[in-house]
Amino acid sequence: MKPDFSKHGGLLPAIVQHASTGKVLMLAYMNELAWEKTLETGAAHYWSRSRQRLWLKGEESGHTQVVKEILLDCDLDTILLKVEQRGGAACHAGYESCFYRRYEQGELVEVEKPVFDPKEVYRK
Amino acid sequence: MKPDFSKHGGLLPAIVQHASTGKVLMLAYMNELAWEKTLETGAAHYWSRSRQRLWLKGEESGHTQVVKEILLDCDLDTILLKVEQRGGAACHAGYESCFYRRYEQGELVEVEKPVFDPKEVYRK
Repeated sequence: MKPDFSKHGGLLPAIVQHASTGKVLMLAYMNELAWEKTLETGAAHYWSRSRQRLWLKGEESGHTQVVKEILLDCDLDTILLKVEQRGGAACHAGYESCFYRRYEQGELVEVEKPVFDPKEVYRK
Repeated sequence: MKPDFSKHGGLLPAIVQHASTGKVLMLAYMNELAWEKTLETGAAHYWSRSRQRLWLKGEESGHTQVVKEILLDCDLDTILLKVEQRGGAACHAGYESCFYRRYEQGELVEVEKPVFDPKEVYRK
């Protein structure tokens, strides 16, 4: 039993949640290779749709994700990873969560403060 | 400011989370129509990819979702809904969450008990 990579062109959404607090950190995509690498190493791997290659989360920033638990949905085509987030931030914009803005009647309101400065973490 | 429906063929993933406990309940997809109906009514609407039509979550089971908070991700192409789940269960299989099974070394282990019997809730 495993995710059904015969669906959706072999690319399944993976919801990433903080293992202790339950905060949703990000959404990424996994193909079968990313799934296997994640199981093999215990570090979250995704398939980068923009770069069209396997992506070890945190490979550049060092902010890797240690996978603590994996849940699969009823249709076996969505993955939920509960992780320990190294560096305290999952978002490339420097926030703990990619969901750092609340939608309020057409406005976006920041509900988190940045954890790091992307300019310092990512090489130019 | 709103989700960028010019991306991904106008269909964006929406993560649905229990507003109080933080439990991830399901993943669904929204197009602009579903987004607008959700804002207008306060009840979660999605786009059903299998039925290719607008879908009021709970339209058949009565298990609607009252939207308490909406967060958008850094790229404006993923939506996070925090909801109050009527009937206590989001999954058509009768569980509170669609993610009712943990992946453990090739096995799926149920980590929730069903809340309802789908045969009694859905008309044949």
